Amino acid sequence: MFLRGKVAFFVTSNVHKFMEARLVFAEYKVAAALLRVEVHEIQDDDIENIAKTSAMEAGGKCNLPVIVEDAGLFIDALGGFPGPYSSYVYRTIGTRGILKLMRGISQRKAHFRSVVAYCDPKGSLRCFNGRAEGRISRRELGTSGFGFDPIFASSNGRGKTFAEMTIEEKNRYSHRAKALREFAKWYVTSFRLRSRY
Amino acid sequence: MFLRGKVAFFVTSNVHKFMEARLVFAEYKVAAALLRVEVHEIQDDDIENIAKTSAMEAGGKCNLPVIVEDAGLFIDALGGFPGPYSSYVYRTIGTRGILKLMRGISQRKAHFRSVVAYCDPKGSLRCFNGRAEGRISRRELGTSGFGFDPIFASSNGRGKTFAEMTIEEKNRYSHRAKALREFAKWYVTSFRLRSRY
Repeated sequence: MFLRGKVAFFVTSNVHKFMEARLVFAEYKVAAALLRVEVHEIQDDDIENIAKTSAMEAGGKCNLPVIVEDAGLFIDALGGFPGPYSSYVYRTIGTRGILKLMRGISQRKAHFRSVVAYCDPKGSLRCFNGRAEGRISRRELGTSGFGFDPIFASSNGRGKTFAEMTIEEKNRYSHRAKALREFAKWYVTSFRLRSRY
Repeated sequence: MFLRGKVAFFVTSNVHKFMEARLVFAEYKVAAALLRVEVHEIQDDDIENIAKTSAMEAGGKCNLPVIVEDAGLFIDALGGFPGPYSSYVYRTIGTRGILKLMRGISQRKAHFRSVVAYCDPKGSLRCFNGRAEGRISRRELGTSGFGFDPIFASSNGRGKTFAEMTIEEKNRYSHRAKALREFAKWYVTSFRLRSRY
């Protein structure tokens, strides 16, 4: 049973992200609540700045301690593309576009990065980072997860793509799970300070 | 000679854009002043929202009537990509990346869109739009201009790319010149109302 009030308010419109977070938080006996708040993401090459700004805006709107997560796929051979704009790139050219851009390129190193930004109603801000190393696969593999999961072969997952893993398995290796875990550890230990919410 | 005070304050860090604006404004006897103000562009699929938000932020910071311009290249066969994120896409995969994505695609229709957002110190906001139709060329042509100009063959410029044109010639057909011209016409006629600045 979760302690009363030990809840992390996750501002997101992405149910996949929320499902991943729910399982990670459960490891720390933290309940996850999905909050839908309209925030204006900024354009910035640094996803930490994007997450921070969104967390401050969301926190200000809700008067609750909130977290926002921002992530990106950074492909070495493409100068870090699609990076902070992964979501838009996914919606337009998609995984097929990335595979086309990577045609004939043998250097397929890539990483996913995630930043979880926490903001409390007093405006205190804290960021937690996660990173997953891997390679862009030659074709789409797997149907789980979302976004670029079918073309990201995780270095730690024996070359399986994130889309070939269950949520539990992906959470062992993923950038997002790592960042969420860092947040959860801190959130649990600093809980007494926040008990007034 | 320009009338005293008939100045448009153009917030941009892109000197090419400023040079284009300067020539367009000269047609209307409006002087262009380049203002460098740090603004946080938002992520939005609609460039009008991006330009508006930036103009409001810049206007608030400077206490001057300012204009901000946002533009994007929208390629039909790529679902509108790179669209509002053209600048980032240019800096990462560049024109070569776009040409690679377009390999084997015969439907090469594209358009450039520009929005000039004006904001005065009282927060009044006005937007002016421009659009240029064209096609993605098979290879880079020309060295003038900036960004995706070398691969955008303008429908009205006898198939020349924007990068094969002088600024004057590009200003005859370009999305940006059209939006700037709409703004300049309005700015000149509404000048008396703004004479207090």
